[in-house]
Amino acid sequence: MIEAGLFIIPVIVGLIYHEHASVRAFLITAVVTAAAGALLRLIKPGKSSIYAREGFAITGLSWIALSFFGCLPFVISRQIPGFIDAFFETVSGFTTTGSSILTDIESLDNAMLFWRSFTHWIGGMGILVFSMIIIPLGGKRSMYILRAEAPGPSSAKLVPKMRDTAAILYGIYFAMSAMLLVLLLAGGMPLFDCFINVFGTAGTGGFSNHSASIGHYDNAYFETVIGIFMLLFGVNFNLYYLIFLKRARAAVRSEELHWYLGIVAFAVITIAININSLYGSFQQAVRHSFFSVSSIITTTGFGTMDFDQWPEYSRTLLVLLMFIGACAGSTGGGLKVSRVMLLLRTARRSMRRMIHSRSVESIRFDGRIMEEETLTTCLIYLTIYCLVTVASVVLVSLNNFPFEVNVTAVIACINNIGPGLGMVGPAGNFASFSVLSKIVLAFDMLAGRLELFPVLFLFSVRTWKR
Amino acid sequence: MIEAGLFIIPVIVGLIYHEHASVRAFLITAVVTAAAGALLRLIKPGKSSIYAREGFAITGLSWIALSFFGCLPFVISRQIPGFIDAFFETVSGFTTTGSSILTDIESLDNAMLFWRSFTHWIGGMGILVFSMIIIPLGGKRSMYILRAEAPGPSSAKLVPKMRDTAAILYGIYFAMSAMLLVLLLAGGMPLFDCFINVFGTAGTGGFSNHSASIGHYDNAYFETVIGIFMLLFGVNFNLYYLIFLKRARAAVRSEELHWYLGIVAFAVITIAININSLYGSFQQAVRHSFFSVSSIITTTGFGTMDFDQWPEYSRTLLVLLMFIGACAGSTGGGLKVSRVMLLLRTARRSMRRMIHSRSVESIRFDGRIMEEETLTTCLIYLTIYCLVTVASVVLVSLNNFPFEVNVTAVIACINNIGPGLGMVGPAGNFASFSVLSKIVLAFDMLAGRLELFPVLFLFSVRTWKR
Repeated sequence: MIEAGLFIIPVIVGLIYHEHASVRAFLITAVVTAAAGALLRLIKPGKSSIYAREGFAITGLSWIALSFFGCLPFVISRQIPGFIDAFFETVSGFTTTGSSILTDIESLDNAMLFWRSFTHWIGGMGILVFSMIIIPLGGKRSMYILRAEAPGPSSAKLVPKMRDTAAILYGIYFAMSAMLLVLLLAGGMPLFDCFINVFGTAGTGGFSNHSASIGHYDNAYFETVIGIFMLLFGVNFNLYYLIFLKRARAAVRSEELHWYLGIVAFAVITIAININSLYGSFQQAVRHSFFSVSSIITTTGFGTMDFDQWPEYSRTLLVLLMFIGACAGSTGGGLKVSRVMLLLRTARRSMRRMIHSRSVESIRFDGRIMEEETLTTCLIYLTIYCLVTVASVVLVSLNNFPFEVNVTAVIACINNIGPGLGMVGPAGNFASFSVLSKIVLAFDMLAGRLELFPVLFLFSVRTWKR
Repeated sequence: MIEAGLFIIPVIVGLIYHEHASVRAFLITAVVTAAAGALLRLIKPGKSSIYAREGFAITGLSWIALSFFGCLPFVISRQIPGFIDAFFETVSGFTTTGSSILTDIESLDNAMLFWRSFTHWIGGMGILVFSMIIIPLGGKRSMYILRAEAPGPSSAKLVPKMRDTAAILYGIYFAMSAMLLVLLLAGGMPLFDCFINVFGTAGTGGFSNHSASIGHYDNAYFETVIGIFMLLFGVNFNLYYLIFLKRARAAVRSEELHWYLGIVAFAVITIAININSLYGSFQQAVRHSFFSVSSIITTTGFGTMDFDQWPEYSRTLLVLLMFIGACAGSTGGGLKVSRVMLLLRTARRSMRRMIHSRSVESIRFDGRIMEEETLTTCLIYLTIYCLVTVASVVLVSLNNFPFEVNVTAVIACINNIGPGLGMVGPAGNFASFSVLSKIVLAFDMLAGRLELFPVLFLFSVRTWKR
């Protein structure tokens, strides 16, 4: 029913641009969605207690349901006639992936483009987190849902009440989005494009209303502003809350932040050196390198230059950044910098233990000792992540596209990036994949956004047992 | 000094074929190697106790030293003039990888070809295990070395005495190699080729004396015999010992064996269907599919058909098999079937625990309860394996070869396969890589063969502390 309410926004856009067919499609969908919601409300739950199992199931099912209803306007208006294509595009929107099956983006109605990008903004911070602000749930109940939807190895509450935590997160998110909107407007970007790019940047999604993405403007100011804001939205939002509480010193000490910025600096510099000969000056090389690195590590996927044409070191390093991803508790995807750090530290400790079998060493992160359970979960996470990736690549390979395309399409989807290499590079799209591949890739996007478990549990018999 | 003794064998081959330059090169190397060994024997160790740290260091350093001296005949005879090329080829031999930098294999002397393949046979079962038969070490001391050299998640002693275990393993290895030699001779293969192919098959190495590898003979009998023997050498040797003890029923019950054969059957059938249209009949498709699957899952790397030309599903599934690899305790590489099984079971259990946090469930393998430490080590192993693979791909990408080549070159080396896809496919070679890439790939081969830790510990300061 909340989603039905959200359809009002593209309806307004459609009315402004006199796109009657699209307005009709959104209104029909709103009614259908509200009716479905009302029907579901008639079912009274047998028990109201929510534990981990219910939290995972609610999250997984909600995201599938949201994507199902969210894709109906595209199908009804026939702007994306195929249901699977529309579903793929909407999952890509909500999961902030940004992979598109559209071959001609500019031909879509503005209302449709707006909704397509708006899903990024909703999905970025988490639609269930948003729901919690509106519908209060009991403390433990909401905790399990927040934990299932929030990205990163461990999710901390900012304040004792979950509802307040959700409200604070959305407050910061909204304020930063507004700031970006003002900066883009000030640079002379059309208002409609501002909204599209704010949604794409804030949600680290990457849908654009132009085929050439941010490259369309060929404007260093826009690139710098968006490049910096992508990085900002890739930072753990808890740090912004600390700054808000005037504890900026604590925020700046964050180990994850240091690694994140260190990785960005390393990648920007080495890629700039690698692509230097392609562009007139080192300054130009840094400009393009910075934007692409920021776009990829934050898992946004906006493009200015077609990095698919870059030398192999740059292409490969960008693929590596896809795996690492942004910080935990941000709107970005990927493994998350902190999870990679914990994996590295756990591996190092295990090697030490092989030599000194009696050593009892605990792993610290941001000064605190990490629980062993969190570390084991990180290891398990990587294992399942590898299994899902490899299995997906085998299934997608049935299309008979090149190896590079299959591998990077899966990597781009499971890490919620958007573009991969080759046919699915910044200048390409996902249109030619088979229906099976699109379903597999949509599954990967959901699995990546919800950090595997909520989606995988839907396939377990145990989840459905009473 | 043992290695110096081993050089006698190619000397004999050289004398038979009147290859005087090669004989000279082997004799010089034998003297140099023996002298180095004698010099090292002059150093008396301060303490004689060997623990995990010393076991790892001994194994890692020995393999590097063996490869260093082992490559000298190629350099001295100028049959492979570049030192890095010769070192790469020898590491590839000892680690039973089978990746080659040779562009024209047939131009080498027979003595050189013999030595090149003989390194497979030595490396397959482990040269240090072999040394133990000759030089007896104390129980605990040899255990740490055996553990560092033997492949698989856990290594069990067959009999209380390590030296006897080593002797039994080599006895089985020798008997099976002899059996294969007889079968190939019976089919009419020239004696020299028989030796080369026995070494390549038994060690699951894959070096051939023909550019077309086993495809050179175009003989269904040879393909069937070698195909079956590759699979046999990919089985845990403990099972053969059980059969030897007339406990065949226990051997047949091995869970790892069931999975191994199941994966082979699945791959052979689906690839045969996938390539059916390329070959006249389904029978022909099965013939080529079986040989390639057997060659890849056992990490041998022999070729009959250039699978690089097959459709994408077959190519990708073969890459997946490269990761899985053969059984623990075999001469094959890869992650090992049992390690993959333990990873899958641990992941499944962790997911169950997320729902029922109080459940205490232990993981069974072959009916026995696995220690938690073994499971954690498997998870750590996968983590480090992923890190090494990704880092190697980035370093190799500096060559500016296609993504597919860089990725599969690293996968083929770290899993000790031999050929990858594209330029490094069955019809290609590793000649055009840079010196840096060859060093990285040689490192990967050693890391893969010794299961990471012995090689990685060489880079740790703690290993070198008193």
